[in-house]
Amino acid sequence: MRIATFTSEGHRKVGLVSADGKTVTPLLLTPEQADSGVLTLIEILARGGSLPEASGHAVDLREVVLDAPLPKPRRNLWCVGRNYHAHAKELSASVFKDNSAKTDEWPIVFTKVPECVVGPHDEVLVPSEVSTQIDYEAELALVIGKGGKDIARDAAMSHVFGYTVVNDVTARDVQMRHGQWDLGKSFDTFCPMGPWILTADEFDGTKTRVRCWVNGELRQDGPTENMIFDIPTLIETISRGITLYPGDVIATGTPAGVGMGMNPPRYLRAGDVVRVEIDGLGAIENKFV
Amino acid sequence: MRIATFTSEGHRKVGLVSADGKTVTPLLLTPEQADSGVLTLIEILARGGSLPEASGHAVDLREVVLDAPLPKPRRNLWCVGRNYHAHAKELSASVFKDNSAKTDEWPIVFTKVPECVVGPHDEVLVPSEVSTQIDYEAELALVIGKGGKDIARDAAMSHVFGYTVVNDVTARDVQMRHGQWDLGKSFDTFCPMGPWILTADEFDGTKTRVRCWVNGELRQDGPTENMIFDIPTLIETISRGITLYPGDVIATGTPAGVGMGMNPPRYLRAGDVVRVEIDGLGAIENKFV
Repeated sequence: MRIATFTSEGHRKVGLVSADGKTVTPLLLTPEQADSGVLTLIEILARGGSLPEASGHAVDLREVVLDAPLPKPRRNLWCVGRNYHAHAKELSASVFKDNSAKTDEWPIVFTKVPECVVGPHDEVLVPSEVSTQIDYEAELALVIGKGGKDIARDAAMSHVFGYTVVNDVTARDVQMRHGQWDLGKSFDTFCPMGPWILTADEFDGTKTRVRCWVNGELRQDGPTENMIFDIPTLIETISRGITLYPGDVIATGTPAGVGMGMNPPRYLRAGDVVRVEIDGLGAIENKFV
Repeated sequence: MRIATFTSEGHRKVGLVSADGKTVTPLLLTPEQADSGVLTLIEILARGGSLPEASGHAVDLREVVLDAPLPKPRRNLWCVGRNYHAHAKELSASVFKDNSAKTDEWPIVFTKVPECVVGPHDEVLVPSEVSTQIDYEAELALVIGKGGKDIARDAAMSHVFGYTVVNDVTARDVQMRHGQWDLGKSFDTFCPMGPWILTADEFDGTKTRVRCWVNGELRQDGPTENMIFDIPTLIETISRGITLYPGDVIATGTPAGVGMGMNPPRYLRAGDVVRVEIDGLGAIENKFV
């Protein structure tokens, strides 16, 4: 299933996207339930409930506004840093060279605040008063279905509800100067997400391809097989002693090709358009303003 | 006002603690409202509403169980690292010596997941499978009342709803090996909080004293005047480009005297009891199991 959160006729809804990708059929939810987007469904299913029935007819996708599938995640999003071999290499020549030790031993895990999530075609605000080094990071994000703690590698994939696309937008100067990354990753609108959640029964996140274009120029193009820490390892590591909940998001890191890794670095400016596409999953495209 | 979240006769309630600290008077809230603890009140007041009326008689504090005043914060807690001069000095001799550059330029800001919050007298689980270096960090935490973005230093204190006590429990080995700190700070039960929220009109967080005892032995004792980045600066810094919301928690950092700073380091073990007290505010005391 491709499950989308969208706004139609002034109301937020959650619905199933048709196989041809042309329509979306809303599900029967209260306005409060629909407000939380797909999170409501994930929680219903995690409690053992069944998918709500369809409510009304299929609507042309061109006539709705797609929201982020999880418009307000239940807590900060988990994010993984430096998780593709080629990206780790480009960073080792950057201002992060001092952090590059032990790259292969433990994943780097930080967070983004839930309120920085915006829709797949929403504008991203450049916080020009705070940062002059805004960068993109195209990423595959997984969404937890069944919660748990101390989840073993072998069982990890059964906890994945589905996948979505995110741009882990980053203010490099802020990320660097505070040592810890959460601030530089959490500016308002810094997490475009969408276009929907594709459930894990229909998609293999461990074998796909993440690409990113800036103003039409291909900048990132990496297979998820090149992750340093694969998805089961990420789930095992994060859930050690820390309970994961239905709806938790783990952004799995970005391939090589970020603006900071170029010589000289090429940061984003107002007017730029960034497109992130993941094969078999979908694309998001956001203008920076 | 001292506003407590507590459980009495099997129900969670929110109430005002009497001036003599002996009783608590519950406020008229629905069960759903009471479930979120003081957060509900903060959100009501931030919307311009007034404090709910009392509901029933004052109850002896000894006959209730105090919960964390914010039993489930609305998102990850903001936390500040290395924010007392003497603590920065002790860390510069520790495994964090490579991080000690630029201590005075920018605060270190990381997060803890909301679900690791437990009550002022709850047990803290030692994740012995994951860590052998569990440490305490006694801290003053402020709670945001009026939300906002780009809050200037001069206006910052008007955004503080009140204060509470937290122990920013930390797995040092996990904190260190992942580079980013969020995982090592977010194990289940790693944020004892309480005993209540004292409103900012009755307490000056910039001039108090934070102390911590382990099994009755005084380990930390620092005045909040010795913060490297004071409370207005922390609010200004975190809110630059990032909207703060009513109920957001900012733990302001810990004074010198953590276990890791000792020679040799002295970490916590199951059976230890850690007490954190802040003058004029209150105390929390938690057994590690």
